[in-house]
Amino acid sequence: MSDDEPLLSPSLIERFAGIVGERHALRGAEEVAPYLTEPRGLFAGHSRLVLRPGSVREVSQVLALASQTGTPIVPQGGNTGLVGGQMPDATGRQVVLSLSRLNRIREIDVASNTMTAEAGVVLQAAQQAADGADRLFPLSLASQGSCQIGGNLSSNAGGTGVLAYGNARELCLGVEVVLPTGEVLDDLRKLRKDNTGYDLKNLFVGAEGTLGVITAAVLKLFPKPKGREVAWVGLSSPRQALALFADALERAGSGLTGFELCARIAVDFALRHVPGTVRPLQSEHDWYVLVEISSGRSPEDARALIEDILSAGIEKGLATDAVIAESLAQAAAFWRLREAMSEAQRAEGVSIKHDISVPVAAIPDFIDEAGRAVRAIEPGARFVTFGHMGDGNLHYNISQPKGAPGEAFKARYREVNDRVHDVVRAFAGSISAEHGIGQMKRDELVATAPPVATDLMRRVRKAFDPAGIMNPGKLI
Amino acid sequence: MSDDEPLLSPSLIERFAGIVGERHALRGAEEVAPYLTEPRGLFAGHSRLVLRPGSVREVSQVLALASQTGTPIVPQGGNTGLVGGQMPDATGRQVVLSLSRLNRIREIDVASNTMTAEAGVVLQAAQQAADGADRLFPLSLASQGSCQIGGNLSSNAGGTGVLAYGNARELCLGVEVVLPTGEVLDDLRKLRKDNTGYDLKNLFVGAEGTLGVITAAVLKLFPKPKGREVAWVGLSSPRQALALFADALERAGSGLTGFELCARIAVDFALRHVPGTVRPLQSEHDWYVLVEISSGRSPEDARALIEDILSAGIEKGLATDAVIAESLAQAAAFWRLREAMSEAQRAEGVSIKHDISVPVAAIPDFIDEAGRAVRAIEPGARFVTFGHMGDGNLHYNISQPKGAPGEAFKARYREVNDRVHDVVRAFAGSISAEHGIGQMKRDELVATAPPVATDLMRRVRKAFDPAGIMNPGKLI
Repeated sequence: MSDDEPLLSPSLIERFAGIVGERHALRGAEEVAPYLTEPRGLFAGHSRLVLRPGSVREVSQVLALASQTGTPIVPQGGNTGLVGGQMPDATGRQVVLSLSRLNRIREIDVASNTMTAEAGVVLQAAQQAADGADRLFPLSLASQGSCQIGGNLSSNAGGTGVLAYGNARELCLGVEVVLPTGEVLDDLRKLRKDNTGYDLKNLFVGAEGTLGVITAAVLKLFPKPKGREVAWVGLSSPRQALALFADALERAGSGLTGFELCARIAVDFALRHVPGTVRPLQSEHDWYVLVEISSGRSPEDARALIEDILSAGIEKGLATDAVIAESLAQAAAFWRLREAMSEAQRAEGVSIKHDISVPVAAIPDFIDEAGRAVRAIEPGARFVTFGHMGDGNLHYNISQPKGAPGEAFKARYREVNDRVHDVVRAFAGSISAEHGIGQMKRDELVATAPPVATDLMRRVRKAFDPAGIMNPGKLI
Repeated sequence: MSDDEPLLSPSLIERFAGIVGERHALRGAEEVAPYLTEPRGLFAGHSRLVLRPGSVREVSQVLALASQTGTPIVPQGGNTGLVGGQMPDATGRQVVLSLSRLNRIREIDVASNTMTAEAGVVLQAAQQAADGADRLFPLSLASQGSCQIGGNLSSNAGGTGVLAYGNARELCLGVEVVLPTGEVLDDLRKLRKDNTGYDLKNLFVGAEGTLGVITAAVLKLFPKPKGREVAWVGLSSPRQALALFADALERAGSGLTGFELCARIAVDFALRHVPGTVRPLQSEHDWYVLVEISSGRSPEDARALIEDILSAGIEKGLATDAVIAESLAQAAAFWRLREAMSEAQRAEGVSIKHDISVPVAAIPDFIDEAGRAVRAIEPGARFVTFGHMGDGNLHYNISQPKGAPGEAFKARYREVNDRVHDVVRAFAGSISAEHGIGQMKRDELVATAPPVATDLMRRVRKAFDPAGIMNPGKLI
């Protein structure tokens, strides 16, 4: 940072601080540090100022001042994003706007099955509040203990509940947004149907804070399942998994609330490196699937359904072995094993990760073809493939060859990325299924998406934020 | 029409005709007439030219020429819209672009549960194609024999399947759109998850042809229910119906695929005026509910579930009497009675209709308060209330006092509309739940929506269609 920084002068800092109050305008290096690094350590930024507004009014005043003075604003929730969308750049000119203090659940309307929550509500707190009202809020992510509703919506979070309940987008009925000018768009409606003009809500959802700041949202709630069963299935190939998925969907319909695919090595890594994980099946298999069934009727009903799916699967040769969790604790352990996979990879050295989706039916072919492409670059690559197979979404993560120096693999990051994404595009897939674009994939999006689409996105951005203050350098 | 019309000169007409071929460029008064009136006869337009392109390329060339020459284009599907969105204005300057010839189902991907259909595919043909592939396409409307997929998406159609499967918006995974410039946006992806930039798809869906022309879409398919049961329930009040709905949802979850509320008079009108309708229950009640249950498992399962809901409903005092359809024919007859209600009103004279939504829990209070407001204007008003209660969506239709002159009631159209919509807004509801804005509600939208929202909508429109050729005079 240089001393002659024109855009974030001491006097401007004072004006921003005056809006949120001295206590909530963080400036000391130690105070701002937690806002300037992210979980994987891939992106780090600088900022002289982190603002923690305590009301929508304060957010509005901050953005109005930012627009007047051309000050770039970087909205931040729980700071768990994986593509650097919540990180300021290196200039020190950008102001971080933390929504954490807007953490009130404004209302739960049990009869309308809605919750109105502010942006800073931690996802787990939202889940618990729903639970307390005998309802289910089905958004569920590995980072749910710290990620926040505003960030979940701004990144259109996915997670493990998408199969039956949809992404964050589908779970959102209405939003309250502060526009770059400071104007407040109050669209906090609880309506299941509303055809009054363009769908502005779905523009803000997934916009990664580039069009405005979501300050609150109306979220959908669901009846709590009366029965839930989780099984761990061993099988020989993704093709077998796909057939099992089709059969399970046929039998369970929307009662199929989880279908997660994991390669053997992903399980082995988790067991090796993450304390407390346990092997669900005694037998070993090249691939595993976690199946979750929910029933709105009874525990017995869920049990009968999962037994039906598994016995048909084994009988038809779609599964080799399977075990049903015999307690809530065991069911949680199955899920913990699945969720430990990302973290476990760290201990195995350098990894190159991809958050991709393809049409569900193309998953086995994708795994074959992407594997061939990567092996051509690095024959010793280890494929730690796992993910939300029912959504066509894989975390196609690759660990460095065993025992080899990590740097050599790291040097191939771009090449591996490009080849994998080429295969994704060949299947008309997405290079960011659930994590978003942020800083990480912006150049690639611009380089590879149809120019017609990126041009429209630029026009939308310009229309919403003519001053260009909202999260510059992200998304497009 | 005047002879000195500057914008649609004979030579320009020839240029447009050259793109689609003479046969498909309709100009004779008789030929164009069917495109210039709509089902309720509320809107009529003029046009010297109806173009029926046979390919996406032709649509592209038509729009490019329209942009170059500033020619307004009115896209039209099956011409079943109820708000005049598909009608040209009275000037004769606007060209109607019929998508009817783009009527190919390009692909059904059973394993990915998707169908790729062109804009001109008639909804019923799409349903039948899905059925032929042992899948369900759940969009279902009274006009399904003639409405088309492109129009369904452009108006974000609702209908009777929304409760379990969502609006047209939720059923659409990807779109192919010709932009006003003639550029083609190919976003025909089959992905359940895709976070690569702004959600352009959801802007085109529901835009009523003002941002571009949807030429094809990837639609979601579902497993076909193995069992389906329909019941007709008599009860005393909307409050009882709301309690029954909550209880049914609790028991059936997403197996509850229909929950339609009807006032006694709506049933009586249908029985009186629509041939072939029959009374499902011998006993008479102030209100009725049609309940539909679908089971992914078996006919027995659906039967057990609906019996459980009805017997619990009667036991708890949430329902007074009920009958389950004993055959497919009887189930179809229950639905036919429900769907005849709109048409039946015509024979009872002038009616003032509202397509509104409120939070589901507010339905009983809305009915009370809107009733009071209308009775204050016209004590003899007859409330032919029916609709998709599970979605919070009522067709709040009011027939003129019995025996009185229709003209007097008609004169109060605006006043009644305004009062009902005031009540809608007091419940944070929507003045167009599923029919859209079109011409009919544009002025009201502009007058009553938050200026922040309408200003953003105008900016979006300008960004997408700077030449202002797409369906002028509609939506905003």
